[in-house]
Amino acid sequence: MRTQPSLLSLAIDTAVLHLSHFSDLSPLPDHILLDLLGRTLKAGKLNEKVLNLFMATGKDEILSVIQALNIQHVLTPVLPTKFGKMSVVNIKDSDVDIIIGALRSDLTSFMNEWRSIFSRFHLIIVKDPDLNEELKIPEGFNVDVYAKSHMDHVVGSSTSVLFSGYSCRYFGFLISRKKYIVSIDDDCVPAKDEKGFLVDAVDQHIMNLTTPATPFFFNTLYDPYREGADFVRGYPFSLRNGVMCALSCGLWLNLADFDAPTQALKPGQRNSRYVDAVMTVPARAMMPISGINIAFDREVIGPTLLPALRLAGEGKLRWETMEDIWSGMCVKIVCDHLGMGVKSGLPYVWRRDRGNAIESLKKEWEGVKLMEEVVPFFQSVRLPRTAATAEDCVVEIAKAVKQKLGPLDPVFARAAEAMSEWIKLWKALGSGSLPL
Amino acid sequence: MRTQPSLLSLAIDTAVLHLSHFSDLSPLPDHILLDLLGRTLKAGKLNEKVLNLFMATGKDEILSVIQALNIQHVLTPVLPTKFGKMSVVNIKDSDVDIIIGALRSDLTSFMNEWRSIFSRFHLIIVKDPDLNEELKIPEGFNVDVYAKSHMDHVVGSSTSVLFSGYSCRYFGFLISRKKYIVSIDDDCVPAKDEKGFLVDAVDQHIMNLTTPATPFFFNTLYDPYREGADFVRGYPFSLRNGVMCALSCGLWLNLADFDAPTQALKPGQRNSRYVDAVMTVPARAMMPISGINIAFDREVIGPTLLPALRLAGEGKLRWETMEDIWSGMCVKIVCDHLGMGVKSGLPYVWRRDRGNAIESLKKEWEGVKLMEEVVPFFQSVRLPRTAATAEDCVVEIAKAVKQKLGPLDPVFARAAEAMSEWIKLWKALGSGSLPL
Repeated sequence: MRTQPSLLSLAIDTAVLHLSHFSDLSPLPDHILLDLLGRTLKAGKLNEKVLNLFMATGKDEILSVIQALNIQHVLTPVLPTKFGKMSVVNIKDSDVDIIIGALRSDLTSFMNEWRSIFSRFHLIIVKDPDLNEELKIPEGFNVDVYAKSHMDHVVGSSTSVLFSGYSCRYFGFLISRKKYIVSIDDDCVPAKDEKGFLVDAVDQHIMNLTTPATPFFFNTLYDPYREGADFVRGYPFSLRNGVMCALSCGLWLNLADFDAPTQALKPGQRNSRYVDAVMTVPARAMMPISGINIAFDREVIGPTLLPALRLAGEGKLRWETMEDIWSGMCVKIVCDHLGMGVKSGLPYVWRRDRGNAIESLKKEWEGVKLMEEVVPFFQSVRLPRTAATAEDCVVEIAKAVKQKLGPLDPVFARAAEAMSEWIKLWKALGSGSLPL
Repeated sequence: MRTQPSLLSLAIDTAVLHLSHFSDLSPLPDHILLDLLGRTLKAGKLNEKVLNLFMATGKDEILSVIQALNIQHVLTPVLPTKFGKMSVVNIKDSDVDIIIGALRSDLTSFMNEWRSIFSRFHLIIVKDPDLNEELKIPEGFNVDVYAKSHMDHVVGSSTSVLFSGYSCRYFGFLISRKKYIVSIDDDCVPAKDEKGFLVDAVDQHIMNLTTPATPFFFNTLYDPYREGADFVRGYPFSLRNGVMCALSCGLWLNLADFDAPTQALKPGQRNSRYVDAVMTVPARAMMPISGINIAFDREVIGPTLLPALRLAGEGKLRWETMEDIWSGMCVKIVCDHLGMGVKSGLPYVWRRDRGNAIESLKKEWEGVKLMEEVVPFFQSVRLPRTAATAEDCVVEIAKAVKQKLGPLDPVFARAAEAMSEWIKLWKALGSGSLPL
């Protein structure tokens, strides 16, 4: 198939305008790629992200042009020098693990929809130990799959029950050796932004994690590090360097992450509002972190993402679970204590409909009731100054849970136990070598 | 001028789809209005806001149709019963004062651009006492204008210096007798939303103020009371009623509210990102409240919006002032203490370019330096339980300012003095009868 030159030219010019929405340029023929690079330069559109895109093609010709033009020198670093190491350009794809908990056996359409975004990265797929059928995973991914036998081998069969249902992905968090982890539920596919462009959720998560967070003062124009944004008048200059961002919480289009009562009361409710913003959730503000679409710095807060609160009637639907909400409370408390940030907002994923909310209602009520105890507890918990790492912090939170919440409901005593257990596992395996 | 029936029909159908973007239906002929109402009903588009729009025409025929159809009974109240009084339908235009501080004499184009939005309301225009020329205000508004002579008469000529420059609008806050105040700088015009529709900033501000705020737990899907949104999984049910919203802070397109150094460093920077969200800023998170585009519940927090921090080199450009930032810190502290909310986000206004940032740089530095003292002070100030009203709170803050900040810089001692003075004025005039 041949395209007329004038049409091709038009197509390339259009591509220049929308380059930041592309996730992979490598399928393009070399001469078109070179043309695109030239026009991008001429149009003044060669920002860090776009440069990264060209470099990611790995094509010699492109790399030598970039080198010859000495392009890197004309780029302004996104971050001040002390965050230089965090700049997007320096993040290698091999610093990232994408971890998927498989609650369904057939991942074919899920993986294919994510192919253009996931295929650059190493994937860890963890099979729900309660799932019996064989996993179906399409070809063409760099993927390691773990199942119940691995869990039994690594943590022992008595502990592997920790990883049932949605909690299976925590096994992936434990055995990953990467700095960054991106984890997305298996009923989500890439979303489109307001202009209809595919959202590269991994890219946006990494952007969130590698630019500073600003938890100590609220910026009314949202993320000040975003292109076209900055700190508003009155924002103290001493706080403008920000702090490290440890957790990035993405959102959901279509089926939002409501609880079963809300979804049952509003069966037709779908989230269609694409809010083009990322923000740091202020220090000491508590929030309901959803595990559906998140990314985090495993080296720094890995041990705080843990399977601990398991509801008696917990099932295989998000609205029946609380493990991520509980774990999210721990992360937020730890980030506040250690002076790190949590961001919320972009990227969106498109969440497919699944399950019947009304049938889940009975199971959910336990979670609803528990939150009334959980929130005041986390709002009042204070960690000692001696808790200087994420591990230390979790141990302290577990103690407080046992003491203050334990007497209220056996589910809390079990959560405290699971947290202590997790830290032992993490110390033994999470940051060391694995007996795999 | 006659329109062909088919074209008219099409126009009315199009209008049905976009009704919520209209601010005033009264210019339409009666028969078109009736047609529009019928089609709106049929299309299932008659929500509270749209009904309000029809009722605001005040036309007998429309009102009787609405009465005959008993439409109000089929509407679901936006808010739970205890907030019933706050429901948008019950806010009368006469409950609102729009207050404009005039720093320029010719308000013709400003007023004309706002005409479709402002003309339903009573306006208070306060002339900067430093401005000598006569104000030019176009016909057709319900407006009261106040100038230096009124200030001298009401508060005495020694105190009227408080109202110089941007601070002139505080005189309007003092003499208004309305429940709600909307205040917008005279270099802003209505913005357009992502779809190109005119933003009714007053309507959105009133919406923000009359739906609850949620300062005690962060909702990741932004304002849970907005159509199509709700509380996400994990949000405690006991907090879902929210609390009263006392202050609504809108944002700016085009020229954003940066400080002079930022604007000088990025002279071409303009804000073009329309973020379609409103959120409650969490309790205890401090923020830089801008006075450019705000609305508040005067009955509840009126006395906390006060002219207190005046910079030595303060001029007639926003980036040279700090009065709103200081006052905003007071409001936020008071709202946190009294258990009320502050919202930020929509509505946007379009801010016109004005002034030369580089020339302002020298003046601004004092403000930049002061914020380094101001922020830690406000972050640590705690009000006694006995402070149960906004007036009490301001008196307590003034005491703390005098004691803790006063020794650092005379500007703070003067601010403390101005705050005490303001509360005396407010008690004498702000909630009583005026000697006008």
